[in-house]
Amino acid sequence: MYRTHTCNDLRAADEGKTVTLAGWVHTIRLHGSLCFLDLRDRYGITQITLDTEQFPEVKTLRKEFVIQISGTVKKKPTPNVKLATGEIEVVAEKFEVLNTCEILPLDLENIQGTTDDVRLKYRYLDLRRSQMRDNFILRHKAAQAAREYLNSQDFLEIETPLLIRSTPEGARDYLVPSRIHHGAAYSLPQSPQIYKQLLMVSGFDRYYQLARCLRDEDLRADRQPEFTQIDIEMSYVHQDDVFAIGEGLVKNILKKTINYDLKTPWPRITYDEAMAKYGIDKPDIRFELFLHDLTDAVKGSDFAVFNAALESNGSVIGLAVDKEFTRKETDELTAIAKIYKAKGLVTLRVSDTEGTIKLEGSAANHLSTEIQRNIIKELGAKPKSTIFIVADAFKISREAMAYVRKELGQRLHLYDEKEFAFCWVYDFPSFEWNPDEEKWDPAHHIFTSPKLEHLDYLETDPGKVRALCYDMVLNGIELASGSIRINRRDVQSRVMNVIGLTLEDAEQKFGFLLEAFKYGAPPHGGFAIGFDRIVALICGTNDIREVIAYPKNRQGQNPMDDCPSPMDEKALRDIGLKIEKK
Amino acid sequence: MYRTHTCNDLRAADEGKTVTLAGWVHTIRLHGSLCFLDLRDRYGITQITLDTEQFPEVKTLRKEFVIQISGTVKKKPTPNVKLATGEIEVVAEKFEVLNTCEILPLDLENIQGTTDDVRLKYRYLDLRRSQMRDNFILRHKAAQAAREYLNSQDFLEIETPLLIRSTPEGARDYLVPSRIHHGAAYSLPQSPQIYKQLLMVSGFDRYYQLARCLRDEDLRADRQPEFTQIDIEMSYVHQDDVFAIGEGLVKNILKKTINYDLKTPWPRITYDEAMAKYGIDKPDIRFELFLHDLTDAVKGSDFAVFNAALESNGSVIGLAVDKEFTRKETDELTAIAKIYKAKGLVTLRVSDTEGTIKLEGSAANHLSTEIQRNIIKELGAKPKSTIFIVADAFKISREAMAYVRKELGQRLHLYDEKEFAFCWVYDFPSFEWNPDEEKWDPAHHIFTSPKLEHLDYLETDPGKVRALCYDMVLNGIELASGSIRINRRDVQSRVMNVIGLTLEDAEQKFGFLLEAFKYGAPPHGGFAIGFDRIVALICGTNDIREVIAYPKNRQGQNPMDDCPSPMDEKALRDIGLKIEKK
Repeated sequence: MYRTHTCNDLRAADEGKTVTLAGWVHTIRLHGSLCFLDLRDRYGITQITLDTEQFPEVKTLRKEFVIQISGTVKKKPTPNVKLATGEIEVVAEKFEVLNTCEILPLDLENIQGTTDDVRLKYRYLDLRRSQMRDNFILRHKAAQAAREYLNSQDFLEIETPLLIRSTPEGARDYLVPSRIHHGAAYSLPQSPQIYKQLLMVSGFDRYYQLARCLRDEDLRADRQPEFTQIDIEMSYVHQDDVFAIGEGLVKNILKKTINYDLKTPWPRITYDEAMAKYGIDKPDIRFELFLHDLTDAVKGSDFAVFNAALESNGSVIGLAVDKEFTRKETDELTAIAKIYKAKGLVTLRVSDTEGTIKLEGSAANHLSTEIQRNIIKELGAKPKSTIFIVADAFKISREAMAYVRKELGQRLHLYDEKEFAFCWVYDFPSFEWNPDEEKWDPAHHIFTSPKLEHLDYLETDPGKVRALCYDMVLNGIELASGSIRINRRDVQSRVMNVIGLTLEDAEQKFGFLLEAFKYGAPPHGGFAIGFDRIVALICGTNDIREVIAYPKNRQGQNPMDDCPSPMDEKALRDIGLKIEKK
Repeated sequence: MYRTHTCNDLRAADEGKTVTLAGWVHTIRLHGSLCFLDLRDRYGITQITLDTEQFPEVKTLRKEFVIQISGTVKKKPTPNVKLATGEIEVVAEKFEVLNTCEILPLDLENIQGTTDDVRLKYRYLDLRRSQMRDNFILRHKAAQAAREYLNSQDFLEIETPLLIRSTPEGARDYLVPSRIHHGAAYSLPQSPQIYKQLLMVSGFDRYYQLARCLRDEDLRADRQPEFTQIDIEMSYVHQDDVFAIGEGLVKNILKKTINYDLKTPWPRITYDEAMAKYGIDKPDIRFELFLHDLTDAVKGSDFAVFNAALESNGSVIGLAVDKEFTRKETDELTAIAKIYKAKGLVTLRVSDTEGTIKLEGSAANHLSTEIQRNIIKELGAKPKSTIFIVADAFKISREAMAYVRKELGQRLHLYDEKEFAFCWVYDFPSFEWNPDEEKWDPAHHIFTSPKLEHLDYLETDPGKVRALCYDMVLNGIELASGSIRINRRDVQSRVMNVIGLTLEDAEQKFGFLLEAFKYGAPPHGGFAIGFDRIVALICGTNDIREVIAYPKNRQGQNPMDDCPSPMDEKALRDIGLKIEKK
């Protein structure tokens, strides 16, 4: 037997026992004829004492050697309070080196100076660090907690295929050429969407899967070619039923991973309200610094910035914050507004000179006393507070102010970093006007059901139609997205009519799902949570690579196994393809 | 709310309640002004009574329409004992058709006459059948039971990548061409082997995953391009530790799915013993009809069939069964022996004429009384029993007799169909002699550790080296395979020496794993169970397609979504490839 205990098992009560441990040399210190070493495994650390005269080979040991020790548990005169096993040490009677270790190419105690690619090349060592170990233990717990909850709610875990037909949004599908059928290919799923809907047609009623998804996107910091989602679909449900499941699921994950008690139900915010108060459809509701629409309030001013926005049907959006800012700070905030394409950020200060409240700042000269009062009133601004305003196109003004708001929340510590503030955003528009093609585009995938009470607008006023479509948002980050699906062919064909898709087009693209809907498809809906994302956030990081065992770098490569690797001629011949000369 | 209860919830105690149910019309029967229908969902069936005068649209209902009913629970005068809800019926007060259903292309009650491809094309309907529903509920339970046990044993579930580097056994890898790096490709994993071994190097100690694996094989009835395995790896273990985990895992799966109490530990059978007694390395131990080696017993006969085998260093393998067979039966058994390449099957009958026991049959004339006695004694044959013998090359004689034995077991009902008889087969040879190339080939993947006490044979007598490699066998079917791995570079390089692989070759093929072994790789081992296979066997079928939601047909196609589908020019251009003209 390699070990009788792990390195986290022994306590004072084990004194006198003969035990065998195995693990890595975490630290080693020679002191006269004694050698003290910390032996480490996944579970913890146990202190070992060896006599170097009895075991002279101990002197050749280095950190990260793999060793096996048998000996007697002894109580330490002074416990090491930093270790769970700190009351004891093991005095070695037998000792064996199970494997040696060369000098490590990275420092397990301090990863700061190490490049991402070196971490990824030696990922198996990077994963030896306690932070990474803890991340993956948390990820494991999160997966079990998700299943535990869903099992308790009568969901069935069902695996959907990885080799599927290319989807209509296929531009980002990975293709897998067939060896048997030359010229044909499978594609890898960006999500199990169609297959889970078909499971509802089959009557499985409640489905989930920790689904592996693949998307051939240009990579960003927070994207990976493969990712995992908690994928859910339910029959005979309305939106509120889905919300309840999403809330219960996340609550159990937070409880079982970090013992966090999440309050449910969560706030439910319409898309319109989110856009009005937060300027964005993924609001960070940890702090109540709301945006206000000043478009009416500033009408009639001679301020060119406002008037340009008003004349082009844009908006004037502002907020007031009870603090004074330096020029450097307002410059930095302006820079943020500009990242989101605002032409600038108007900054005003509320002054209170002998009871006369008015605005100061270069724009103030262009604003009449009445308009100043309107602004102050609309924003509820107090003396000495600062007002930020973006006047621009509808979307730009809101989005720019949303990120100004976000930055203010962070800088002014308006929220508790450790809080998890979830909400649902719902009632999204079903269609978006495409001015270039002068047509309506679907704002979501085409099986997203319109609100039933809006069905009549499909033919009369598509812009009014809201969708039974919702996002789960955590601290301003979209974690999940879902919808109630269209299960009836008559509704499906009316929706396709709006976006100018003929039934033939649709049959070609989604034929087998449309076909399935002929045969008694029940009402159904669902959602999918980004599992890497939620685990990363619970681990306190935004970078999902910290919770994926072997991620790719920004070029889609894995520096460890060096994939993707060149295809040789035989491999290409087998699949009937050749490299196209440029 | 679509429903207050499922179709399996209501009992006599619910009498008088107002309830709402939703589901499929399972059966419908009009009787005067009353309509009786069975409403079905995943959970069960509830009987509904409607008044056709109140709800005239009931007359348009057909099977598999999706409907919603509200009404009052009424106790039935005569309970329907076939239904869990059979004590009650619901008398409808509200009724709505949620969706219609066209005539089904297959019969949900009787699938016999339906071709495989029709079942697969309308898989979403095929899955509506109760047998399929039950299979997937069982699969769900099996997955949870596997995780439950492994979690209880401190295993961590960790996801390994789907986009990896092509492996050395890469001929059956699916390739995924890179869009960013033209001419290069990822491959899809045939198993997470290397990545799970690296997790051991990282110190995760105990890993599992219900791993999706893909192999581009020519398809057989029991093969699918994608399959799932319960993939396990453990550090600081010997073979017996791995066996204990495998046994506990399977025991929990059988208990939680069909409440079967599996006895552990299982028999452990060496490869040599399996070959001697069963003729095969995956023995069906449900019945004790053992093979015997008659090679010595028949020496010196003038029977050409035996002598040909003896002269070419082959074997004479036989068994005796206490039963007489017709000519037709022995012909059929001979045909089976021939499938496995035996030249024929010698059949002898043991006669007892007035106390003189001797053999009858055309071969008997060539066998002296002494040789006849030897045979009878070696086989322990009784009067009136029948003896079957194959004389052929070493492997053929054993394999052919193994399948003759299997057929006899089935025909003579020598075992209980419902028994699950597991065993471990171990001590496989490490190397196989390749007579064409006059060299030793590895019998397993090259990280399989030789038995430590056989290391010295590596240089002196490789044929003697046995591997720390084992199979889990159920009722004659190999369910899992695993090994203790080589974790030390010195042993690895000695093994590679035997098979004539240079360190450079190896570095090119497995470079990153060999590299990892420099840095304190602990001793480790593991195995992988075919999850589809074990679930199918528990469901009572040999066909894994019955437990895979959307399987491919024998041509690797899915008739439902019609994949693989032709790649269009744009898709090919994106990945820098073109179709090679033949």
